[in-house]
Amino acid sequence: MRTDGRLFDQLREIKITPNVSEYAEGSCIVEFGRTRVLCTATYEPKAPQWLMGSGAGWVTAEYGMLPRSTHTRIKREKSMTGGRTQEISRLIGRSLRAAVNLKLLGERQIIVDCDVLNADGGTRTASVTGGYVALALACKKLLAVSEIKAMPLVNYVSAISVGLHNENILLDLNYEEDSAIGTDMNFVMTGSGQFVEVQGTAEHTPFSRQQLNAMMDVAEKGCKELFIHQAAVMGEIYRLAGK
Amino acid sequence: MRTDGRLFDQLREIKITPNVSEYAEGSCIVEFGRTRVLCTATYEPKAPQWLMGSGAGWVTAEYGMLPRSTHTRIKREKSMTGGRTQEISRLIGRSLRAAVNLKLLGERQIIVDCDVLNADGGTRTASVTGGYVALALACKKLLAVSEIKAMPLVNYVSAISVGLHNENILLDLNYEEDSAIGTDMNFVMTGSGQFVEVQGTAEHTPFSRQQLNAMMDVAEKGCKELFIHQAAVMGEIYRLAGK
Amino acid sequence: MRTDGRLFDQLREIKITPNVSEYAEGSCIVEFGRTRVLCTATYEPKAPQWLMGSGAGWVTAEYGMLPRSTHTRIKREKSMTGGRTQEISRLIGRSLRAAVNLKLLGERQIIVDCDVLNADGGTRTASVTGGYVALALACKKLLAVSEIKAMPLVNYVSAISVGLHNENILLDLNYEEDSAIGTDMNFVMTGSGQFVEVQGTAEHTPFSRQQLNAMMDVAEKGCKELFIHQAAVMGEIYRLAGK
Amino acid sequence: MRTDGRLFDQLREIKITPNVSEYAEGSCIVEFGRTRVLCTATYEPKAPQWLMGSGAGWVTAEYGMLPRSTHTRIKREKSMTGGRTQEISRLIGRSLRAAVNLKLLGERQIIVDCDVLNADGGTRTASVTGGYVALALACKKLLAVSEIKAMPLVNYVSAISVGLHNENILLDLNYEEDSAIGTDMNFVMTGSGQFVEVQGTAEHTPFSRQQLNAMMDVAEKGCKELFIHQAAVMGEIYRLAGK
Amino acid sequence: MRTDGRLFDQLREIKITPNVSEYAEGSCIVEFGRTRVLCTATYEPKAPQWLMGSGAGWVTAEYGMLPRSTHTRIKREKSMTGGRTQEISRLIGRSLRAAVNLKLLGERQIIVDCDVLNADGGTRTASVTGGYVALALACKKLLAVSEIKAMPLVNYVSAISVGLHNENILLDLNYEEDSAIGTDMNFVMTGSGQFVEVQGTAEHTPFSRQQLNAMMDVAEKGCKELFIHQAAVMGEIYRLAGK
Amino acid sequence: MRTDGRLFDQLREIKITPNVSEYAEGSCIVEFGRTRVLCTATYEPKAPQWLMGSGAGWVTAEYGMLPRSTHTRIKREKSMTGGRTQEISRLIGRSLRAAVNLKLLGERQIIVDCDVLNADGGTRTASVTGGYVALALACKKLLAVSEIKAMPLVNYVSAISVGLHNENILLDLNYEEDSAIGTDMNFVMTGSGQFVEVQGTAEHTPFSRQQLNAMMDVAEKGCKELFIHQAAVMGEIYRLAGK
Repeated sequence: MRTDGRLFDQLREIKITPNVSEYAEGSCIVEFGRTRVLCTATYEPKAPQWLMGSGAGWVTAEYGMLPRSTHTRIKREKSMTGGRTQEISRLIGRSLRAAVNLKLLGERQIIVDCDVLNADGGTRTASVTGGYVALALACKKLLAVSEIKAMPLVNYVSAISVGLHNENILLDLNYEEDSAIGTDMNFVMTGSGQFVEVQGTAEHTPFSRQQLNAMMDVAEKGCKELFIHQAAVMGEIYRLAGK
Repeated sequence: MRTDGRLFDQLREIKITPNVSEYAEGSCIVEFGRTRVLCTATYEPKAPQWLMGSGAGWVTAEYGMLPRSTHTRIKREKSMTGGRTQEISRLIGRSLRAAVNLKLLGERQIIVDCDVLNADGGTRTASVTGGYVALALACKKLLAVSEIKAMPLVNYVSAISVGLHNENILLDLNYEEDSAIGTDMNFVMTGSGQFVEVQGTAEHTPFSRQQLNAMMDVAEKGCKELFIHQAAVMGEIYRLAGK
Repeated sequence: MRTDGRLFDQLREIKITPNVSEYAEGSCIVEFGRTRVLCTATYEPKAPQWLMGSGAGWVTAEYGMLPRSTHTRIKREKSMTGGRTQEISRLIGRSLRAAVNLKLLGERQIIVDCDVLNADGGTRTASVTGGYVALALACKKLLAVSEIKAMPLVNYVSAISVGLHNENILLDLNYEEDSAIGTDMNFVMTGSGQFVEVQGTAEHTPFSRQQLNAMMDVAEKGCKELFIHQAAVMGEIYRLAGK
Repeated sequence: MRTDGRLFDQLREIKITPNVSEYAEGSCIVEFGRTRVLCTATYEPKAPQWLMGSGAGWVTAEYGMLPRSTHTRIKREKSMTGGRTQEISRLIGRSLRAAVNLKLLGERQIIVDCDVLNADGGTRTASVTGGYVALALACKKLLAVSEIKAMPLVNYVSAISVGLHNENILLDLNYEEDSAIGTDMNFVMTGSGQFVEVQGTAEHTPFSRQQLNAMMDVAEKGCKELFIHQAAVMGEIYRLAGK
Repeated sequence: MRTDGRLFDQLREIKITPNVSEYAEGSCIVEFGRTRVLCTATYEPKAPQWLMGSGAGWVTAEYGMLPRSTHTRIKREKSMTGGRTQEISRLIGRSLRAAVNLKLLGERQIIVDCDVLNADGGTRTASVTGGYVALALACKKLLAVSEIKAMPLVNYVSAISVGLHNENILLDLNYEEDSAIGTDMNFVMTGSGQFVEVQGTAEHTPFSRQQLNAMMDVAEKGCKELFIHQAAVMGEIYRLAGK
Repeated sequence: MRTDGRLFDQLREIKITPNVSEYAEGSCIVEFGRTRVLCTATYEPKAPQWLMGSGAGWVTAEYGMLPRSTHTRIKREKSMTGGRTQEISRLIGRSLRAAVNLKLLGERQIIVDCDVLNADGGTRTASVTGGYVALALACKKLLAVSEIKAMPLVNYVSAISVGLHNENILLDLNYEEDSAIGTDMNFVMTGSGQFVEVQGTAEHTPFSRQQLNAMMDVAEKGCKELFIHQAAVMGEIYRLAGK
């Protein structure tokens, strides 16, 4: 049993509250247990300069933590830049682009901001999962007002963490588990059951191929459940995405 | 009549939701209509270095805007530094210190973070008003666990904006009004009816002393109403503050 | 009596020396007692980009302190940026713009630099008062060489500080007084007797409305005397400004 | 066949030249084909402050690219900071720590600098592989002069990239292949055949679990060959590491 | 003849006004014609950390230009940092240290700030020459109040520029001459007729050894005249320096 | 005799290895004894913006030190910026421009990067000497592919250091000598025997004119030997340069 009473392969309580921002084209607050992230998608009618004339658009992401989203306060400078912050921002951006046909988007840009309100482990996986919803809601709205002509989303994307602790495989680590564990993996998957990102790090003890395979089994289970949560709040998107 | 149907001397709907953060010693979300600010108070058991040996503590504040808290997205760097941001941070800090007996606080520090989730005018006055509640809740908690021996708060503090538009005095400006108006004043007041800060700027047409007096009348009315909202969520604080 | 022998409502010795810079379009050194500020106005034939096509121009200001303008040396980085510096720069800019018809200026810009040579309290009020003179001298020169077609100045602007100390109202605080005093206000006024900026802060004890009114009385007296000093060095400007 | 004539599962020519620096405690130039990285290990007799009193030491890494190590010159600022640079620095550091018993190192620090002299794809895997050699040579030297009492290295570590292109699995991608390919994975492995890091990104087309498994087969083959290259230049280390 | 009517080997009008700052331990405004620099010397009772325990002190310098000290306004950031600014700061510091016995100064520091009020060529040579006077006045004062026990100055130091234009050797170049000239040299000399710094740059045409020798003749003449100007304002220092 | 056995006027072993970079238009590694610098020349088909329309091009240089190129590791930030780094970059740029007819180059730019692999004194003189070779090789290549129509190099340029130690004149100081010595001069000379830069600093004891002359004699000898080394690797350039 885990410290919060969950089964090894059980997600924390997932909650996605859509349309929480007055101004953003798409937005939600995503909760993985006590981890809460505000995701907003901002539409810009032109693509970054290096894409000019290519006919394709861009989706990018920025991640930040509010100063007191954690046990001890983070200094503002550190919460907004620094290696870890940029690494996560880049991961979210790549993950979301895997769900988008950038040619269908055309020479436009969507910026997804993921700001952590409360951090209890898994902020990057919650950000990908919620960021996708914000992005999808923005696409729906842009289509509704004919700002874009076709739905550029071509797939679902969600993300989850898996850990390895004394031969047990744990799904969706909270902060306490994450701190105690040797190997921590993050998986980003598509609705069609494939991988977009696989990131695993053995802080203390390296892991075997067998263990990696077992972790993938559990991750797949978790991502599938997340797709259902996403679909519940995005409504029409699913069908539009052509599945 | 105003564009949102309010009377000239009427506040927007005020809402203060306490204890919204898992980790902060005190916290609330304060809403002035569609303006929403997350306020958290962080306790540090030691004072800044320049106060060492003085027997006194410190209260400081930092203000920030989330990237998509406004109509058009603000770049992260700009939302966290820059002249305007620092100016507002300093104003909030000074205002909150006016409510505190720093000797009673002792060589400790409380940092109040005010992060704007949604901006529709009056973010600095909402930040002072909500920041005070976060500070008060933190003080209550520190007292309850005997981390401090006496309540360091000695007064209430709230803040409100007033504008001058075609000879009309408008209380609590929203963004639309703020943009259209020549003179914009911010008042920070104490529960005992005195001024902590008076800041007025005539962007286009200078104002007369008579007009300034009329604006103060309306500001007093607004701040008094805000004290009632603060008291409603802080409970025991009022009596402890001894006024 | 005050430590330097002045009456409560008496300004320090005011001295404005015009045309001190070889290159600036307008310049002066302004002295409020031992506070000395070098003010230069730089003309640029085009407006900032965000005003392009608007037909209007811009006036902005930058404030800085020389490293050894104070009792203990300030580090260069700190003397040129930082919250306080930017806040004062913004105040000077707003104050000077209140004296200018930006449409008459046309798509041009004037930058007023206020660099403190010696700081003994009141550097921001001296900067507004001297910055106005530098601006006026630049406008006169631009008009003389037909670079602009009409005098864009529409009013006088000066600024003064007032303090509240043991129920006494003190005009034009020096550094020693400023450090000892609870409430410190800065007023920016026009030649027509109206307010452009009112900024008051009670560091320790909040102040009442009565006290604020008494401070305004004294501030008006101070600003009126400053207009006479300004007029003495600017010559023809007064009449051109249409008063 | 590949553009440079290699078999799909063939490494580029690997060359490790040890002791290239006059001052560094350990150093080498590692070459994966035309990719060349200078790796230096710097010993510091004390650990970072946050480890004080823990009895444990630290190994960290910094990655940089020389301005003209690439086809088009990179600006110096960008070559030394920025998200990608920091992400790779963190990856190298984590990978090398997996080979070290930090308790055996004691309260000391080793900093491994990996500076890319020439970039033709795979700079991060070459950096891990060569950085390990520099680290090992430094440990050997510190042991020889009794600066440390026991060999802190407990395992080999090397890294290699694998790509997926039109159903083919390619080992050790060069720049041309890397640019053309959809899925790019980096594996960091230990001499005992386990994983330290698994990082895979599908830029365009997500990949299946079967494909991931096939990529792991090839990566294992590559890492094993790299261990032989490392052992050839490090001499005694292998036995000291206890295998 | 030169554009300003001077002979080839004639200095501009030199003027040194001592004690211009209220707070600095030593200060002057130095003028080389229309070039005007404010020099202040700040005393700090302890040496930089890297000298702790050495028994020796330090003299350092910082150079800056006020935004409108030049024909076209310099941005503040640029006027205070940047390669040229740092290069000149370092030159002034080295030059002044050549005049000081750092052991006699003891573990103390003197910081000389040279801020250009008006730039018409030769700001670095004026800064060295005036910076020396500020330093000397500070030393005299520290000696008078027994803060130091012995005069640490052991020599005079002054600096002058020399240029080469169409086979003519020009002493003390103004801005106009400096812009038109190919070779520009700066010499820093001691009162005993030796060189502390020799810096020559041929922007267009390299110069011969003969020409260099001719430039040195003229520089010596200039520096000797500057020592007389320095001695006139420093009074007692000369004798104490013992040369 | 010197610590490394050289005669007073003897260069260290000089070695220039051309064409060491895969991508740079011109490159070499230059060695002055144990000092090793990687020099690369990057061609850009357009000139900096401030030269647009002038018909002339630009040559600039950037200098950096790899973190462990020295006895104790330099922090990356410091190795790439800071006063000393910028000062040396500017010196290299000026020196190389003295060898180039910028009109013949046309509106193009060549950037020479000098990155120190190993520092044992004289990094700036090695950088000028090797940077010139990289520049020359780039010009040759651009001419060969008709990217430029005429050889823009009009002279040779090399640089060497000279020191003064107990009345002895030492050529080409290594780090140990440089640290022990009072006066350190750097000379940049042309193939026609003239000076481009003369930079001398007396850290402790000022030097006389006689001593300066003796140092020039030795410098000339050193530079002449360097021209022979440069010519040996540049081949055809010499004749093209017309001397």
